[in-house]
Amino acid sequence: LGGRPLGLGKCQVLPAAREAFRRLAGAGGRLRVPVVFLTNAGNCLRAAKARELAQALGLQVSPEQVILSHSPLRLFSQFHRRCMLVAGQGPVEENAHNLGFKNVVTIEALRKAYPLLDMVDQSRRPKELPPPTTGFPTIEGVILFGEPVRWETSLQLIIDVLLSNGNPGAELEEIPYPHLPVLACNMDLLWMAEAKMPRFGHGTFLLCLENIYKKVTGRELKYEALIGKPSTVTYRYAEYLIHEQAKKQGWNSPIRRLYAIGDNPMSDIYGANLYNNYLKSAQRNQAQSCKSILVCTGVYRHSAEAPSKPEKHNTETVFHGHRDFSFDPSLVEASYVVQDVNEAVQLAFQKENWS
Amino acid sequence: LGGRPLGLGKCQVLPAAREAFRRLAGAGGRLRVPVVFLTNAGNCLRAAKARELAQALGLQVSPEQVILSHSPLRLFSQFHRRCMLVAGQGPVEENAHNLGFKNVVTIEALRKAYPLLDMVDQSRRPKELPPPTTGFPTIEGVILFGEPVRWETSLQLIIDVLLSNGNPGAELEEIPYPHLPVLACNMDLLWMAEAKMPRFGHGTFLLCLENIYKKVTGRELKYEALIGKPSTVTYRYAEYLIHEQAKKQGWNSPIRRLYAIGDNPMSDIYGANLYNNYLKSAQRNQAQSCKSILVCTGVYRHSAEAPSKPEKHNTETVFHGHRDFSFDPSLVEASYVVQDVNEAVQLAFQKENWS
Repeated sequence: LGGRPLGLGKCQVLPAAREAFRRLAGAGGRLRVPVVFLTNAGNCLRAAKARELAQALGLQVSPEQVILSHSPLRLFSQFHRRCMLVAGQGPVEENAHNLGFKNVVTIEALRKAYPLLDMVDQSRRPKELPPPTTGFPTIEGVILFGEPVRWETSLQLIIDVLLSNGNPGAELEEIPYPHLPVLACNMDLLWMAEAKMPRFGHGTFLLCLENIYKKVTGRELKYEALIGKPSTVTYRYAEYLIHEQAKKQGWNSPIRRLYAIGDNPMSDIYGANLYNNYLKSAQRNQAQSCKSILVCTGVYRHSAEAPSKPEKHNTETVFHGHRDFSFDPSLVEASYVVQDVNEAVQLAFQKENWS
Repeated sequence: LGGRPLGLGKCQVLPAAREAFRRLAGAGGRLRVPVVFLTNAGNCLRAAKARELAQALGLQVSPEQVILSHSPLRLFSQFHRRCMLVAGQGPVEENAHNLGFKNVVTIEALRKAYPLLDMVDQSRRPKELPPPTTGFPTIEGVILFGEPVRWETSLQLIIDVLLSNGNPGAELEEIPYPHLPVLACNMDLLWMAEAKMPRFGHGTFLLCLENIYKKVTGRELKYEALIGKPSTVTYRYAEYLIHEQAKKQGWNSPIRRLYAIGDNPMSDIYGANLYNNYLKSAQRNQAQSCKSILVCTGVYRHSAEAPSKPEKHNTETVFHGHRDFSFDPSLVEASYVVQDVNEAVQLAFQKENWS
């Protein structure tokens, strides 16, 4: 999309983005080629994001074209019937249900059921000893949708659930390990909003959780899945949706080459290159390559302007990627660098010998 | 005091504690020997804690006998005229002023002055671009009094202040290092309240701050001072207050031997032993020794009961002490282990050949 994260809740649409989609859309505003939108946003609904994009770009966008950080959880059916604790902001329960999870417990519900757990905020501590909790379900897994509000509460309750094997009222002789499965969406450490310096993203919350778990237990927090860009799971899901879209549109010629356009080397480009490697190694894929195209209208700048710095640091001494994604300089090198998303689409058309 | 942390805001007084102080107090309820109370609590006022103790123990307790985690900051006069950002809960501003700090900025004031910094809570983000901040003072240091509420807000703003050298609206070419001085009070990772498992303390907040700073900058967060038990600063301040008290009471014979009674091996005992080593190494101290006496009525238990576990872990595979305090098994070994604080006082009297 080539715009900044929605710091103030509204997307600033770049003229180049509208131009790019005029190019992509044929007569009647229907796309001439399958397109999906990958965002690491997760504290919102897919349909809402689709409406937002449609309005911003002036064309039809269906929810099936939008991949939020948590969208691939739809494929994790082995957890859909388990009792899952969900953390994040916004419509977390609705998101979980839309993804297929039948049995969901929120941090707030857990807090109410076990009033003695959340003790940081002195003004919210129970005034007298509450009765013991009965009939609350045993939690069987944790979904981290995005950065919550009141980190101390979510951090404490998630740690309690992991240390108690899902019964935070009980207390075990041994700390269970491996712990309950943890599914985390969106590992972005930082993102650029309107402030001069980057803001904390969900990756910063995960960093706190990982380090508290390590300090308290002496062991590593392990993720059953870590999804959203740059994870391969997310790009595989994107390819799946592209093929679905092609079918729907009666598009018969197989899709061999994917083009991933983004402004963030650590997430968009790293993920596209990682997926390109996956396509090269794996067999019987429809697509054979995923080319990464970096635009200079977002986090990344050619110049030494403010927003580029945090990313420049990444590629220099400091690694802002997630603990579980080793830093590989070749993975943050885009196949192509262009000015904006319109140039990116032109480039793709040219590579495909399109008019 | 031999009681648990004040989980529900009221201290559960042990009969042994009242008995111990009947023993310590002469006729008229005045103490026969200088006594100070060391607590790592910090999100409250010294005078309030003194009243609480007086009521619980049925004797006079003056604020000068109470050492909260931040009380030694009174001695850090080199910072008293600087503009300090203060984080924590409760009367942080009043505490700072009582300690001698003349120029204090709260996290909430900083948040209001720079509305674009605190972006985690979507419901609190500014709806439109606010005017640029003018006339807000440059911050020259940070005081971490205790665990705040809404950790994400304090973590983000403290990091912003350290990365911007005290002007979070600006953005620097280089990340300043060493960063602005950080004074932290109370490094307890966990504490036992009414829940079966220990709760997060200020040490857990510090752990998050240290790891975020390290991840973002690639460098270590450095503390100008890290006070509260088990820090030697706190025990030195305690000895100073004991001498002051002795003077006031016209107690002429010099105080050579100190007895530190506590229930927490990682904080009370570790700190007392550390101070004992300091007394042995340093010259021209009035006191020559600080004996540690561990009671079994609090965090530590002889048996394998719940509350002892977290501490047992410490002395086994996992170290729950602070990053800057290396784990030394000899330092968590008490000079004496007794059942309760009453036995502890009897032991001290016996060592001193008192009736």
